[in-house]
Amino acid sequence: MVLVVSHEARMPTYLLTISYDGGNYAGWQRQDGSETVQGCLERAFMTIFGEPHAVYGAGRTDAGVHALRQCAHVRCPRAMAPDILQRALNGNLPRDILVRAVREVPADFHARFSAAGKRYAYRFLTSPLRPVFGRGYFWWVSHSLDLDAMREAAGQIVGEKDFASFASNPGYVRKHGTVRRVDHLHLVQRPGGIDLVIQGNGFLYNMVRAIAGTIYEIGIGRYPPAQMREIIEARDRRAAGQTAEPGGLYLVRVLYPPGILGS
Amino acid sequence: MVLVVSHEARMPTYLLTISYDGGNYAGWQRQDGSETVQGCLERAFMTIFGEPHAVYGAGRTDAGVHALRQCAHVRCPRAMAPDILQRALNGNLPRDILVRAVREVPADFHARFSAAGKRYAYRFLTSPLRPVFGRGYFWWVSHSLDLDAMREAAGQIVGEKDFASFASNPGYVRKHGTVRRVDHLHLVQRPGGIDLVIQGNGFLYNMVRAIAGTIYEIGIGRYPPAQMREIIEARDRRAAGQTAEPGGLYLVRVLYPPGILGS
Repeated sequence: MVLVVSHEARMPTYLLTISYDGGNYAGWQRQDGSETVQGCLERAFMTIFGEPHAVYGAGRTDAGVHALRQCAHVRCPRAMAPDILQRALNGNLPRDILVRAVREVPADFHARFSAAGKRYAYRFLTSPLRPVFGRGYFWWVSHSLDLDAMREAAGQIVGEKDFASFASNPGYVRKHGTVRRVDHLHLVQRPGGIDLVIQGNGFLYNMVRAIAGTIYEIGIGRYPPAQMREIIEARDRRAAGQTAEPGGLYLVRVLYPPGILGS
Repeated sequence: MVLVVSHEARMPTYLLTISYDGGNYAGWQRQDGSETVQGCLERAFMTIFGEPHAVYGAGRTDAGVHALRQCAHVRCPRAMAPDILQRALNGNLPRDILVRAVREVPADFHARFSAAGKRYAYRFLTSPLRPVFGRGYFWWVSHSLDLDAMREAAGQIVGEKDFASFASNPGYVRKHGTVRRVDHLHLVQRPGGIDLVIQGNGFLYNMVRAIAGTIYEIGIGRYPPAQMREIIEARDRRAAGQTAEPGGLYLVRVLYPPGILGS
């Protein structure tokens, strides 16, 4: 084992920036019997290098969740010019997964553990008639949404808090705790709907979708915006609103501290 | 048979205006063993009225082809307020098919034979990197397109002509001839790409996709625009360009002569 680790430390490490349409995948994480984004990337590496290599993602997006700029690292058996590796990967990936950039990073870089934060966006489409196109790219809301109420509730989310009320996975929660820092949460009106943009140092399993679902319920008037404080203080998933549909969620970018990516 | 026809003539006739995402269907036309838009609509009528009713479309869109405003008629066993019929249909249709409007029309109305024309749009998306989102909604072109050359070629298409060079189905062609009238063909630049919009009194099978594919090949410089005249005059499918991908094609609307829809 020591030999392998020592060997790995000398292997060139690459950071991949990846976009994908999550609608056709059972999420990021490799699974037997299901097509996943990690599985597709690892198969592409297998084709290129002739041996298996693990691709480590910054975050495990769920089935149906999209990524504008997911990040992942991989340690390769031999050096390859980043642009050549990028072309080789894209030539061996399905059309709904794209490696947008490849760069070499220091050997101790880890896509997940080196990350300082992440930004997600959640897209609401408001329309009285149900939209038939692009169903997997937003959450359709037939009601009108009260943007002011949603913004008032969103203000309660920002800061370092215990987000147990928005955590779906008790096992993970026990292991890693439920305190996270949300740096900002904006609600942006655009033609046809509202985008929720949230950035923080880390997110619990399903946390963004639970926050989006709760803010949606405040937007349609099911709760008053002031109730967001009580929901957070309850530290109980049952106090918050529903988990918003996966198709509306986009991993926008992964943030790394300055300097960590190397020269 | 006479009895049935005479009975049918007294049945209320409804015109349905329908939007659908063709990406999940094996086209408009009912088929055993495949999900089709006509099949879904007829199943919804079966659920509502408890007996089978044929839904006649204005045009048979292929697998993957979308409709912004397809039209279809159906003769119903009993009168029903159009807005109630619309709600009942939408309640029994998949989420990617929407009945946008229902109106009662004269008993001799026929969605296909009463139509005076149709408008289609074909969407090209131009981008050097392959797009990962909405793959079924456009034809991706990694080259730049020469809009002036495309417009020059498009000008040759307009008018009443023999479009045999753009007809894919010899059996249909022998029966119905290949002369059609194209009223206009516009190329519209929009952010991220070009839309081709074509309107005419009728279109041969695959004719719009063959025209779009040929204009695309002129746009990337494979043929000079002046060759469009020779392509048309050849009256041979092999003279024209490729058939453009179905996902870029939208049936925009069906045109009926003034007065034919009744009061």
